[in-house]
Amino acid sequence: MGTYRKERIVHTKEEGSIVDLTQWVEDCISSSGIGQGLVCVMARHTTAAVTIMENEPGLQGDTRRALERTFPKDAAYAHNASEGDGNGHAHIRSTVLGQSVTISFDKGRSDLGTWQSVVLIELDNHGRDRTVILQLTGE
Amino acid sequence: MGTYRKERIVHTKEEGSIVDLTQWVEDCISSSGIGQGLVCVMARHTTAAVTIMENEPGLQGDTRRALERTFPKDAAYAHNASEGDGNGHAHIRSTVLGQSVTISFDKGRSDLGTWQSVVLIELDNHGRDRTVILQLTGE
Amino acid sequence: MGTYRKERIVHTKEEGSIVDLTQWVEDCISSSGIGQGLVCVMARHTTAAVTIMENEPGLQGDTRRALERTFPKDAAYAHNASEGDGNGHAHIRSTVLGQSVTISFDKGRSDLGTWQSVVLIELDNHGRDRTVILQLTGE
Repeated sequence: MGTYRKERIVHTKEEGSIVDLTQWVEDCISSSGIGQGLVCVMARHTTAAVTIMENEPGLQGDTRRALERTFPKDAAYAHNASEGDGNGHAHIRSTVLGQSVTISFDKGRSDLGTWQSVVLIELDNHGRDRTVILQLTGE
Repeated sequence: MGTYRKERIVHTKEEGSIVDLTQWVEDCISSSGIGQGLVCVMARHTTAAVTIMENEPGLQGDTRRALERTFPKDAAYAHNASEGDGNGHAHIRSTVLGQSVTISFDKGRSDLGTWQSVVLIELDNHGRDRTVILQLTGE
Repeated sequence: MGTYRKERIVHTKEEGSIVDLTQWVEDCISSSGIGQGLVCVMARHTTAAVTIMENEPGLQGDTRRALERTFPKDAAYAHNASEGDGNGHAHIRSTVLGQSVTISFDKGRSDLGTWQSVVLIELDNHGRDRTVILQLTGE
């Protein structure tokens, strides 16, 4: 039985950037020497999301458009009035999408299906450096 | 300390089908011989969701209607234009609802409350066979 | 390797109340004597959410307003017609936001970033007593 963890800085280019973490997750599972268990991937931020999607260009745009339709950037946000950083929409989107995701793994590979990718989505109104933590427990 | 896992194929009848996994989750916890820990249930798919709800007929319909109001099937999806399978809406809904859920258990039972059920929701535009993985860690 | 758990009753004052659980989570991690692993916090209810946000008054209101815009209280819910408790909207919001959250910890502290708080959001149409379970696994 054991645990294993890694930290990684992810640079995002701009609002809506989607960074694929899948290969990194697989590499960490493989490197851990732990055969079977759970792996949690989380961003240490309230204006980014860590989630699972089919990561192809069409859906990247569809996701950005669905977020804008549902939680518009130019709605009235009290956070913007008090903080002045114009990212109220990013906070709401981040809470809805989630800032961490937990999946299982076995025999040194994640249980992600063929089309599932673990991604970080930049929701803030500019690119940033994001800290991502990966933590495994299992045996 | 230990781990335990099960795989299951879930057949969904049609778009919007909701399959209750709660009794299966309880049976797995009980069979595992692990007293206390975490259990993750995930679908290996990007057009289905695994989530928690009160699973009664009224809310099943309410959930389908809320998803249609919020992420309409007939919006313009780039994924549909490039892939031609007409399920762009299903991908967005799946990412928002989540494809895995993690809960705790103790003394051989989950911590789910009286009204909480773990369910798989078919979001694609037709019934399919879905692979679900359950993974426990604990002691 | 080990596990640790705590149960807590959280009293919410009214619909939309947001109760910060962050310090309690940190205290539990510290008390557990487990150095590194995963911690899951879940509500045993289908009309409340456990999620992560920057917990400041502006965003508290923004979150309530975004939920009302997206999943309105006065939409037609079959659950309300059959159950008569007027909280169909709360069920939908709870399933979308999530009833449990899993994060990692190391050296006796969670990996939450500076602005991240674990919160319980009351989504039902009146204040209630809510049971929250915290479960750690790690070593």
